[in-house]
Formats: sequence, C-alpha cells, structure tokens
Amino acid sequence: MKVATIKTDHPDGQLAVVSDDLTTWHSAGARTLQAMLDGRTADKQGPEAPFEMSACTSPLPRAYQFLDGSAYVNHVALVRQARGAVMPEHFWTDPLMYQGTSDGFLSPTEAIPGEEAWGIDFEGEIAVIIGAVPRGASREEALEAVRFVMLLNDVSLRNLIPNELAKGFGFVQSKPASSCSPIAVSPDGLSDWEDGKLHGILNVDLNGQPFGRADAGVDMTFDFGILIGHAAKTRDLAAGTIIGSGTVSNRDASGGPGRPVAEGGAGYSCIAEQRMVETIQTGAPITPFLKDGDRVRMWMEDSDGRSIFGEINQVVRTQ
Amino acid sequence: MKVATIKTDHPDGQLAVVSDDLTTWHSAGARTLQAMLDGRTADKQGPEAPFEMSACTSPLPRAYQFLDGSAYVNHVALVRQARGAVMPEHFWTDPLMYQGTSDGFLSPTEAIPGEEAWGIDFEGEIAVIIGAVPRGASREEALEAVRFVMLLNDVSLRNLIPNELAKGFGFVQSKPASSCSPIAVSPDGLSDWEDGKLHGILNVDLNGQPFGRADAGVDMTFDFGILIGHAAKTRDLAAGTIIGSGTVSNRDASGGPGRPVAEGGAGYSCIAEQRMVETIQTGAPITPFLKDGDRVRMWMEDSDGRSIFGEINQVVRTQ
Repeated sequence: MKVATIKTDHPDGQLAVVSDDLTTWHSAGARTLQAMLDGRTADKQGPEAPFEMSACTSPLPRAYQFLDGSAYVNHVALVRQARGAVMPEHFWTDPLMYQGTSDGFLSPTEAIPGEEAWGIDFEGEIAVIIGAVPRGASREEALEAVRFVMLLNDVSLRNLIPNELAKGFGFVQSKPASSCSPIAVSPDGLSDWEDGKLHGILNVDLNGQPFGRADAGVDMTFDFGILIGHAAKTRDLAAGTIIGSGTVSNRDASGGPGRPVAEGGAGYSCIAEQRMVETIQTGAPITPFLKDGDRVRMWMEDSDGRSIFGEINQVVRTQ
Repeated sequence: MKVATIKTDHPDGQLAVVSDDLTTWHSAGARTLQAMLDGRTADKQGPEAPFEMSACTSPLPRAYQFLDGSAYVNHVALVRQARGAVMPEHFWTDPLMYQGTSDGFLSPTEAIPGEEAWGIDFEGEIAVIIGAVPRGASREEALEAVRFVMLLNDVSLRNLIPNELAKGFGFVQSKPASSCSPIAVSPDGLSDWEDGKLHGILNVDLNGQPFGRADAGVDMTFDFGILIGHAAKTRDLAAGTIIGSGTVSNRDASGGPGRPVAEGGAGYSCIAEQRMVETIQTGAPITPFLKDGDRVRMWMEDSDGRSIFGEINQVVRTQ
C-alpha cells in the first residue's frame, strides 16, 4: 500500500491512497494519514484521480513524535575519529537516539530556510511510521507495528551543534524542520524490506552531481525493531510516531572510511561525513556546507529503476 | 477563558469551554483544543452541562511538540553544586531546553507507571500552550502567542538520566509521559500572569504532606517570552506547541539552597532537589525517589483560595 498527503488549506492535508504505479489516487474513509493510523479505514471512498507528486506535502505533515536514531554506527565512529575522540564501546550495542522536531515537516520540494553561518547540512535517512507500541515491546512486537516506510532529510545546523550539545540536553535549535519523501509505502509493498531494514541504494545528489550511493541495508547496526524497542523501553509510543534511522552510511570495501562517488566509493548521505573523511585524510575539511541556491535530491529505485518513494528535492534559501 | 478536554474514545477527546467557577461547560465549534488552536471557533455550540474534573484528560492529550526549558536556574545550579561541578556562566543567559515527549500525556489523575529501580521523580512546572510562532520571533511576539497556561508534572527517571545524558543526545528513555492540570487558562483569565511569568505558589504535596510551596514568579531567570524565542531561533513553531518552565525552584531567603516546608522553607518541586540539598548539607541524599503507592498532588490557588487549574493527583504504580 502506498500513501501520500495532498496539500490543502488544513495543516494535516488530505490522505491519498496511491496506485502502485504512482499514476492515480483515491480518497479514503480516513481524511488524514493520522486518522488512518488512529484506526479509520483506508477503504476507497472518492473517485480515482490523476496523481501529481508536486501536489504532495510530507506523508505526516505534522506528527506527535519523531525519534531519530543513529543506526549506522560507522557514521558516529567517523564523527569521533575526525575529532580525535574515542567512541565508547557500548555505542555498538546501545543505540543513540534523540527526540526530534515533529510539529511541522517541510514539503518534499520546499526550500530549506536558514542562514549560511549556521552550517546547513542534509542527512539522508530511512524512516518508519508506526502504529501504537506498548511500553517494553520486544523487537518482534516493534517490527509488527511498522505501518509505513519513507525517506527523510534530517536538516542539521552543523555550526550550532557543538555548543548546543555541550549544554547536555540534546538538539533544539540545531535540528530544525526535516522533510520526508512524498510517498510512504507499507512493508508488504516493499520487496527489499527484510529483518527490519530497507535494502537498496539511497541516492543523494548535490547540485546535480552524485553525492551518496550508500546501501541502506548495509552497516545498519540497529534495525528498526531495535530502534523502536529502545524508544519504548520506559513508555508507550503513540500511533503516528516516526522513527528515523540516522544518516545512512557505508564503510568502504577496504573497511576504512568511504570514498566519494566520483572516486568509485558509495559516497556520503550528508556533507559532514565527507568533511570528516577529508579531515581524517588531510587534516582539514574541504567541502563547504550548503549555500543559498544549493539543491539536494534524495530517492530510491526498485530493481526496474522506478522511483519507490518519489523524490525529496529541495533548494536552500538563506535570503 | 478556561478550557479542558473531556475523555472520549477518540485520542484527542472533546474540547470543553469551562465556566469561570469551574461548575459548567459547553462544547464549541472546535471539536478539540488542537482544532481551536488551528483556528476553529471556541463559540458555544452545545447546551451547558455540569463540569466534572474527573472526566478530564490533559488539555492537549497529545501534542505536536513539547519543549521544556530550565528557567529556574537555581535548580540547575543546585544539580551542579551537588555533584561538585562548576556551572558555566552562560547558563544564566542562554536557556537550557530539551525536546520532550508529546505523543501522549497522562491524565491528571492517571497512575505514573514505571519501575522503582528507574528512580521515578516528579517535577512541578508551569507550561504554556502557544499559537503559531514564526522563526526568529522577538520576546514580545512570542508572548503574544501564548494562548493558555497550565501546570505540568514532568515525570523523570533519575537513575536513567546520567547514562542517557552521557551519550550526548538528550532525554529519550529517562523522560517518559508527563501529565498536565485538567484546566488550561488563557492569560487574560489569570490575574497573576505578568511579564511572561505566572506569579503565585505552586503547591506540591507528597503523600499528603506539603513538599513544595515555591512561588512560580520568583527566581524565574527566563520568562516564557525568552523560552519561546529560544525555541523559535531557527524554525517556526506550530500552533499547539507546549513550552515548559522546568522545575519551579526558589532560593532560600538567606540566598542559599531552599529548606523543606516543614522547616519553614518553600520546599521543592521535585525530590531530586531535596536530595541535592541533602547532599550539599550532609554528603548524601536521604529522601528516596517514588515507590509504588506514593501519591503526588500539584495545584495553585487564587487569592480567594480557589483552585485555578484543578489538580494533578497521581499515584505511582510499579506493579
């Protein structure tokens, strides 16, 4: 099952149940995706109409919760290595996770607002939308609750992060609104959803050039069952909670930090990781963070080259 | 204007516009408080009916965002002093704030679930529910956006906090669902709302004994205008965002850490603060965290001794 949300003058938009080939949609008993997750029917109600990706906002334009993990520990290890810090061994067994901004997601083609001095960066992630999960749920119960999978661009303000994290309470100012792919797909509609991971290449282009081609199913230390279970350790999770994977990141075939796509590597799903590799290799970062007018695109394709989730395609606007 | 939310079988309940004397309510054009914050009318629709506090859940049973500040820096200073750490000077000028759990608030009389080993504690706070706030809003614009004021019990799992904060990404497991007072009051309905602060005693009782009698308008280093502006520095805030004050905390008249109510002091709005004072004074904490069956109550009274927000009245259930 594929769903999207059509922009309307209501903050939650209009639920669209989209045909498998992404050409048509119909409305459902549930007016919004949240209403469907709350239990209202997705059964066809309105007439079939032509589907236009450009009419979409994020599948959940606003959500009651967004918890973002750091499942690709390779990414975390590189952050530490670049600043000469030792990564605690338990980072391989106890997931990092933060409570993120969920009161308003940017549309898939909406400009990323901000100031260049903030060090604006993208982070290409896989995310799931879940049904209700009780406190203490097992990995298996958690995986049962996965209702939809989508892509997510976790916008990060790199130059604000060090001071904010030093205060000890996580991200508030340094993680503004993220964006999601226009289409969310249920696990049974994904041939490459297996063992709580989505397998396949997350394509990331920066200004029309390939920047990331990492496989989301590779080097994912914590699958979504473990991430959801971590979040549910001490509390129930409500239907409509979004759980993010953290930046998709692959080690190089040699076991070292990844190489850029242009050099035959899998590249990176955020600029910060490329800068960390540059720092490790040359002593200083080279690639700048995003500037006004820069454009980032994220998408995944099935084995026939068709877009699975539609495309995140955002330009940066600092003026 | 006073509002509450009546429990129904829908997760968002039913908006109740409550009479000033808390005896009757009527339904409104907006079915829920979120719908009213989104712009639907609060004009009377249904017939007047007797109001029962016990029928209420939290004013916003689930919210798109809860950002909790630490406006009473005295509380933060005591935390640091108790563990022998220096508090950075900028903590007096740059608010601490974390992104909290908002996908489901406990009802005002719902049991606090958990395990005793987690070190369950309450935190008595003032919270505001805001309308939409644009990125970069000034303190004045932020204060204009305050739609309702209420009380909040920020449930905290003290024994899980040190390890989680050491990971650097803030609270996920150590801050489960909070609860709110049954009544939320608009600023124009509060005679002691002034300069972005609510003045008056926050009463906290533990097992029927006075535990906290701190004045919420005293020692609040950052008012709600500054807290909201901090949250909005890099992003828009959606209507229905809840901003918390952090644990209400007063210095003792002597300037030192506060004394228990039984010793003539203003007491504490959380057990941790009492334990910190005990640690500073005797080298070790004495008061235990919450056990199964412990009961915490929080309320505020107007100058005539009438309850303003109704009462948070929760028992701890660890079994």
